[in-house]
Amino acid sequence: MRKIAILGSTGSIGTQTLEVAREQGDLEITALAAHSNIKLLEQQIREFKPRLAAVWDEKKAQELRTNVRDMNVRIVSGMEGLIEAATEEEAKTVVTAVVGMIGIRPTIAAIQSGKQIALANKETLVTAGHIIIDLAEKCGVSILPVDSEHSAVFQSLNGESRRRVEKILLTASGGPFRTWNKEQMRTVRPEDALKHPNWEMGRKITIDSATMVNKGLEVMEARWLFQVKPEQIQVVVHPQSVIHSMVQYEDGAIMAQLGVPDMKLPIQYALYYPDRRPMSGERLNFFQLGQMTFEEPDLERFQGLKLAFRAMKAGGSMPTVYNAANELAVQRFLEGKIAFMQIPEIIQACMEEHTTIQNPGVEQILEAEQEAYERIEGRW
Amino acid sequence: MRKIAILGSTGSIGTQTLEVAREQGDLEITALAAHSNIKLLEQQIREFKPRLAAVWDEKKAQELRTNVRDMNVRIVSGMEGLIEAATEEEAKTVVTAVVGMIGIRPTIAAIQSGKQIALANKETLVTAGHIIIDLAEKCGVSILPVDSEHSAVFQSLNGESRRRVEKILLTASGGPFRTWNKEQMRTVRPEDALKHPNWEMGRKITIDSATMVNKGLEVMEARWLFQVKPEQIQVVVHPQSVIHSMVQYEDGAIMAQLGVPDMKLPIQYALYYPDRRPMSGERLNFFQLGQMTFEEPDLERFQGLKLAFRAMKAGGSMPTVYNAANELAVQRFLEGKIAFMQIPEIIQACMEEHTTIQNPGVEQILEAEQEAYERIEGRW
Repeated sequence: MRKIAILGSTGSIGTQTLEVAREQGDLEITALAAHSNIKLLEQQIREFKPRLAAVWDEKKAQELRTNVRDMNVRIVSGMEGLIEAATEEEAKTVVTAVVGMIGIRPTIAAIQSGKQIALANKETLVTAGHIIIDLAEKCGVSILPVDSEHSAVFQSLNGESRRRVEKILLTASGGPFRTWNKEQMRTVRPEDALKHPNWEMGRKITIDSATMVNKGLEVMEARWLFQVKPEQIQVVVHPQSVIHSMVQYEDGAIMAQLGVPDMKLPIQYALYYPDRRPMSGERLNFFQLGQMTFEEPDLERFQGLKLAFRAMKAGGSMPTVYNAANELAVQRFLEGKIAFMQIPEIIQACMEEHTTIQNPGVEQILEAEQEAYERIEGRW
Repeated sequence: MRKIAILGSTGSIGTQTLEVAREQGDLEITALAAHSNIKLLEQQIREFKPRLAAVWDEKKAQELRTNVRDMNVRIVSGMEGLIEAATEEEAKTVVTAVVGMIGIRPTIAAIQSGKQIALANKETLVTAGHIIIDLAEKCGVSILPVDSEHSAVFQSLNGESRRRVEKILLTASGGPFRTWNKEQMRTVRPEDALKHPNWEMGRKITIDSATMVNKGLEVMEARWLFQVKPEQIQVVVHPQSVIHSMVQYEDGAIMAQLGVPDMKLPIQYALYYPDRRPMSGERLNFFQLGQMTFEEPDLERFQGLKLAFRAMKAGGSMPTVYNAANELAVQRFLEGKIAFMQIPEIIQACMEEHTTIQNPGVEQILEAEQEAYERIEGRW
């Protein structure tokens, strides 16, 4: 049995990881961690019988403790609990699927305990990539991407020499507003933005897809994951989301991974790498598909993506500011407090007011986050 | 210096192999073999200074011997000479780019001498795949495909476990008559068929692309090269020829190799595998490309492809009959003696009149070829 811990087990990636475990039958879940959905977490505990479960909120943790007192599981809470779940002794792999910068400390702790990381938490690499990648190398730990684009790149690197990589081509669906003009985009309501053409995901990431900030975050992640220069990453808009991403080599050959959009594939790939396990489900049918199209991203309409490249080139604490400002701006947009096109405006304002700290430690990263939050509070 | 011998050095693949050698600068050419173009062969001898050169025709060989008497090169001729070139002591890799079943014996000899094979001679695997693959395994020799489709499959298998392969997807441009109806196809003249949409190749292979017999031969080759069942190979018509071929795995993931059509890539890949060497030249531009399309091959209009699957399933000596009948039929078509749509008719007639010999030896393969030739001579 392969033993894994899942941080963020009640979210989209977490529940799909458990689906993979259910289908494969040879994964043992040693620890689960969730934010606050203790009803679902209880079901997961009863089905997968972890030794340990962490809940972010201490009150909810107490409630859960009472509800599962018939089970042989220890319930912990807070950051301490999350770190305990991340370092649970028996687990070989930790799936980091929590949302937000809350993922940094448990990921660091897991790496220090020698766990393989199946990484689904974007913020970890975006904000602390320089720390994480160095640490993983020092601890001899693999970071396996759980994300359709990065997994596609990772699969396209299989058996290849990384020094022969010329370019990474990250595909992007372009989101629901790909064909809208600027005027139309000014009128976007949250319900418009929550319709993603190809993937079903959480609300925050769906808005991030609509602004293409999500692609911007992925670009920054790719930089660390695959150790390339910012100018070696290119975004290709590909509305059908069939090519999940590509790598171009120095001989001009491009390797790509394709398939129907299904998050279970990258999850399963990360858990069993370098093996591939059979997976039931739909196969890509090229005859039904008929065509794939490609476009250059419009950085004029999708300023969020343009700003991501700027933040990546500035480096240091700037990606943290980009990420934190976007987080709050999306919240404001979903609450109906700001317009859709204000999201990149707010990110830009926060970035312009920030002085980059190079090579920041975790404390400085969290301070930069706080600083961005404070700039936004009260102003928007 | 990597030492290589090239069989078929004056043909399309041969000259492009020498271009790769010219660009890379670290390949030593130890032997060259050509059919009859002694003028070009002489230039090649002067530039690349092989120790040995083979010419098929003994008269031409004598002429060449006189012309290069100032050079330190031994000129040999006939099948014996070709085999001598294939087994030249110093070469580590033999590029088998001769056209036709003449390639079988020298390929076998090269494998027995422990040479790596960069295989560009289709007929070898189509007709004698069962012998070649077994022998290569016994001799611990790698067969590296030099052909854009098979190289793409080979690249898509890099780092993967072959037992996880679900399907091989060979792409096909569909040739110049992809959109012609049956009536129009009855009127095809040689000059129409010699226009290939994406690749510049020799005359025989260009006609084979127009009839899709070339794809049929590639399907049969793929079966041996990648050790899959006939039903695991699918042809996907993709007119832009950008995806060079793909492999679908048991988890539903599809790995593909893409690029601009340039035969130098698969040649170079085979010569330096598993490394990739930098190669100058155009890169695929997705924004200029705009779209890729996919269609099911029309086996009604392209009977040659349908017959290939039938020949593959029959196995034994049947693919030899398919290949030999096509060879003569194409010759007749180029001479203006038969119509374009008669090419598959002749193949079918020869296949129907042939009784399959299972597991044929080289002698029996050559006899089956002769039998097909004789059926055609005098009748068409």
